[in-house]
Amino acid sequence: MLTKIKRLLIGRPLKSNESHSQKLNKLKALAVLSSDALSSVAYGPEQILIVLIAAGGIALWYSLPIALGVLVLLVALVFSYRQIIFAYPQGGGAYMVSKENLGINFGLTAGGALLVDYILTVAVSVSAGTDAITSAFPALHAHAVLVAVIIIVIITVLNLRGLTDSATLLSFPVYFFVLMMLFVIGAGFFEAMTGQAAPVHPHAAIGTPVMGVGLFLLLRAFSSGCTALTGVEAISNAIPSFKEPAPKNAAKTLLMMGGILAILLSGIVFLSYWYGIHPMSNQTVLSQLGGTIFGRNVFYYMIQVSTALILVLAANTGYSAFPMLAFNLANDKYMPRPFKVKGDRLGYSNGIITLGVMSIVLIIISGGRTENLIPLYAVGVFIPFSLSQTGMIVHWVKKKPKGWLPRLFTNFIGALICYLILIIFFVTKFSQIWPVLIFVPVVIMIFHKIHQHYMHVAEQLRVNLSIPLRSINTTDNIIVVPVAGITKVVEQSLTYAKSLSSNVIAVYVGDSPAAIEKMEKEWGEWNTGIRLVTLHSLYRSIVSPLDRFIDTIKWKADKDGATVTVVFPQFYTKKWWQSLLHNQSGVLIKASLIRHADVVIATVPFHFKK
Amino acid sequence: MLTKIKRLLIGRPLKSNESHSQKLNKLKALAVLSSDALSSVAYGPEQILIVLIAAGGIALWYSLPIALGVLVLLVALVFSYRQIIFAYPQGGGAYMVSKENLGINFGLTAGGALLVDYILTVAVSVSAGTDAITSAFPALHAHAVLVAVIIIVIITVLNLRGLTDSATLLSFPVYFFVLMMLFVIGAGFFEAMTGQAAPVHPHAAIGTPVMGVGLFLLLRAFSSGCTALTGVEAISNAIPSFKEPAPKNAAKTLLMMGGILAILLSGIVFLSYWYGIHPMSNQTVLSQLGGTIFGRNVFYYMIQVSTALILVLAANTGYSAFPMLAFNLANDKYMPRPFKVKGDRLGYSNGIITLGVMSIVLIIISGGRTENLIPLYAVGVFIPFSLSQTGMIVHWVKKKPKGWLPRLFTNFIGALICYLILIIFFVTKFSQIWPVLIFVPVVIMIFHKIHQHYMHVAEQLRVNLSIPLRSINTTDNIIVVPVAGITKVVEQSLTYAKSLSSNVIAVYVGDSPAAIEKMEKEWGEWNTGIRLVTLHSLYRSIVSPLDRFIDTIKWKADKDGATVTVVFPQFYTKKWWQSLLHNQSGVLIKASLIRHADVVIATVPFHFKK
Repeated sequence: MLTKIKRLLIGRPLKSNESHSQKLNKLKALAVLSSDALSSVAYGPEQILIVLIAAGGIALWYSLPIALGVLVLLVALVFSYRQIIFAYPQGGGAYMVSKENLGINFGLTAGGALLVDYILTVAVSVSAGTDAITSAFPALHAHAVLVAVIIIVIITVLNLRGLTDSATLLSFPVYFFVLMMLFVIGAGFFEAMTGQAAPVHPHAAIGTPVMGVGLFLLLRAFSSGCTALTGVEAISNAIPSFKEPAPKNAAKTLLMMGGILAILLSGIVFLSYWYGIHPMSNQTVLSQLGGTIFGRNVFYYMIQVSTALILVLAANTGYSAFPMLAFNLANDKYMPRPFKVKGDRLGYSNGIITLGVMSIVLIIISGGRTENLIPLYAVGVFIPFSLSQTGMIVHWVKKKPKGWLPRLFTNFIGALICYLILIIFFVTKFSQIWPVLIFVPVVIMIFHKIHQHYMHVAEQLRVNLSIPLRSINTTDNIIVVPVAGITKVVEQSLTYAKSLSSNVIAVYVGDSPAAIEKMEKEWGEWNTGIRLVTLHSLYRSIVSPLDRFIDTIKWKADKDGATVTVVFPQFYTKKWWQSLLHNQSGVLIKASLIRHADVVIATVPFHFKK
Repeated sequence: MLTKIKRLLIGRPLKSNESHSQKLNKLKALAVLSSDALSSVAYGPEQILIVLIAAGGIALWYSLPIALGVLVLLVALVFSYRQIIFAYPQGGGAYMVSKENLGINFGLTAGGALLVDYILTVAVSVSAGTDAITSAFPALHAHAVLVAVIIIVIITVLNLRGLTDSATLLSFPVYFFVLMMLFVIGAGFFEAMTGQAAPVHPHAAIGTPVMGVGLFLLLRAFSSGCTALTGVEAISNAIPSFKEPAPKNAAKTLLMMGGILAILLSGIVFLSYWYGIHPMSNQTVLSQLGGTIFGRNVFYYMIQVSTALILVLAANTGYSAFPMLAFNLANDKYMPRPFKVKGDRLGYSNGIITLGVMSIVLIIISGGRTENLIPLYAVGVFIPFSLSQTGMIVHWVKKKPKGWLPRLFTNFIGALICYLILIIFFVTKFSQIWPVLIFVPVVIMIFHKIHQHYMHVAEQLRVNLSIPLRSINTTDNIIVVPVAGITKVVEQSLTYAKSLSSNVIAVYVGDSPAAIEKMEKEWGEWNTGIRLVTLHSLYRSIVSPLDRFIDTIKWKADKDGATVTVVFPQFYTKKWWQSLLHNQSGVLIKASLIRHADVVIATVPFHFKK
């Protein structure tokens, strides 16, 4: 039943060698991996304006030089990551680069920050997407959290089905969004030239001096604008998902994405300035822009729908990156081993499910309000950005390949800018991002704890192949069969026990002398050739007398170098409800014995036929 | 940890032979077993007035003849049940009496109706008690359901501690309530004589003719008044809880309870009539009566508190009766066996917990509003009433002991009245009680299903003691050891396997030819004397290839009459969180094998030391 539902949802299991069919070509990869970055234009420009408006509408012209700064940063990041793609074609991104060049602790810092960031990607994007949906359909507004959760569940199931299936499905909306944005920008410029659409507010000329705009405010606005760059790293982490030649295809995809992002970002910031759009609490900047240029016609609704869709898809980037990173960390024994297991459809199911569950938890905790999560999200992105640029500097200095100097310079500029931005973040938004300072060290500590455990386990499990297997004398082995009465089940267990060893002891725990006497009498009538030991329980508990008895047996066996096996029957009823009619005390007794007494438990199945 | 909490809540475990100290003397038994019946005066008279007020305040004088009818019924029931106590000193009440005299299906009808009724007792009484509390402390009104649930949890824990402990604690409030009611009645009569307190409304003289009062209305009012009799049967079901001589003590207790109930009932009905009290939706009749006689002084609040307390304690009656009845049904194999198990404190823990959970569910479903549950509750009580009276008629006719004729007559009158009331119920309140007609047959069907299963099990487990135990040739036994690599754990499992049989097969499932080759090479280097079989899994699943392999082995072994044992290691980590770091695939594989392949599973514990 469960299996059928699973098949229906995620499809038939794939053979391991069907893996190649799941690789992505450039256009599909662009859709799957860049929706996070591209969707940032839906909230990035707005974040700049929200800061500037504090100094009045006249200060909004500063968004232009700030956007220019963000563009410079974008170019630096794209070129830096392009170099990382070629240097680390096996993927792994910031974690791999930092680990190899800066040592494991920096690698884990990058990895930990990224893992959390991917969860935030899903939570933030889905919440923002839900906001767009509920703005279009106000009736859904009261159920925003539910809508968001349903969306995450759908994305999770699509990802459990496998990457390509979802890529095919998901690339359409990405291109739809890009086209809609280009259309908005084109129409916006055209109308601005011809003066057909009236600005909402008159815009101040570039360079107008504004009272109260200091460096702090501008830096704050700039760091807010950097949220438009979240997701740029996704491609460099997922190179193995590309068709061969993977690094080349990935690099081209990265350039394409950078170009599109730059065009959309600058276009939207400029038009927002030109049309004098002020950020509002109940309507997004993008929505205002669309409304101003087109009025509330079909084009406006198409913009809203495409925005909602790409934000939802941005969440999907996390589903490509998180399981891959978790796999890499698990492979290095810093995350639990289950993250290495490929599922029926060749995706890393445990990573996908973990991401889905964690982001649902985040959305429920935040009540679907994402405003406060965005700064955390941005700082979480720039920690690995900085570390991988630094790692690349070390890489070039160490390796010194042909033409390494200009490459070093590229990454140096990248690193410099990233550190600057991190400093700006901490200076201007400390009250919102301090949890990072607690969270990242805790995660690193957990990584190390896990690693230590796996190392200890490996050490304890190591076998010296040159030593032959120890032999135990068969006749010394003791088989204990707890019996509750004389039944077919007991008969079966005793027969089995006798087939293993000549040293079988049946043990009966009675709660009254009368019960014990009756049992001994019946046992005497039965020709089993097996000795019966009876124990009296004062507290109606079977576990403790049995435990004590087996401890004694075990102590004797250990002296002789023999093994102790306790035989338990397990009932299997024909119908599930019938199993409720049997005391499952056997399960508890088994659990107690195996944990404390260190004996082997042999479970003999008994299947009821009706 | 859990054990410590359990000890703290329910106390140290008691030895089985400490049982006698849990018996009740008459005064404690009256408290524990009659609170249900006595608390009925808190809502019984009100139910009569609610029906009559439909014909106007002038019709309220009819409450006096109706109460007289209820008193006659009470006397009949008390004498009938007194006879049952002596005839069936082992307790069991309606279930036992009906089963023995009318056959199993009538017994199950009574038993099923009573089980449901005890749950309703708890739910109705606690909700009504909560209403009294929230009336006194209006701030709690919004949390009524929570208050009710907390009360049930407390009662459940007290009952898990054991009967006497709670009896000591609980008898004070019962006597407090009785005294408060006697005080109200005494003061009410005194003030009525001396004319100190003014009636709320002038009362119509007895016998005043009223338009619109027909037989239907009077019968409806009478059947409503019968809710004051719920709980009368409790004593006859709990005779084994009494100190010796149990039947005599129980009979005396029943008479005491009947006398007190009669006094309280007639006093309150008469005073309500005399002071012209009309039922109101936001204040109980008892509260109005207290307010009129005393004003809102300390006595008034004491009445309210004592009412609330006894209603809460009424719920406790269910905790004496339900587990005992469930035990009797389980003993006859009509309920699951766990209801027969005595807990650490010698109470039937499973029955107590079941009752607590079910009544919490009922309270949550009904939102704490009990008005609609009361008719269901009353009809549920009168079904077993009727059946036990009928059973007693058959009993006397069959046994014909000395002086059986007057006894037969007593029970005949009792039965006649009960059937009459049931007919009145179904005629006047069908819309509220029809669920009984669906529920009781369903419960009886479930009882039979359970019984049938236990009968089948007993049949399948029966052993012929004269046939000696079958012997299996030890050397034929096959031990299969699935190995995931070469580790200490595998070494331990193989050593164990070799100690059981010379016929050991190690089996390795690899997901690539390379992995299989590597394993075979390493195995070759290791001197184990054990054959390795390698299987290739195309789908990364270990279960299905292993399942198929073991099916083959099993098929061969079955032909030879040999057993197949599959050896699995089980890891025990030092700290609980470490167990999360290991794939628990072993557990799934074991579950699959034991269910499908019908082989013995031997679990070898491996304890990590760090």
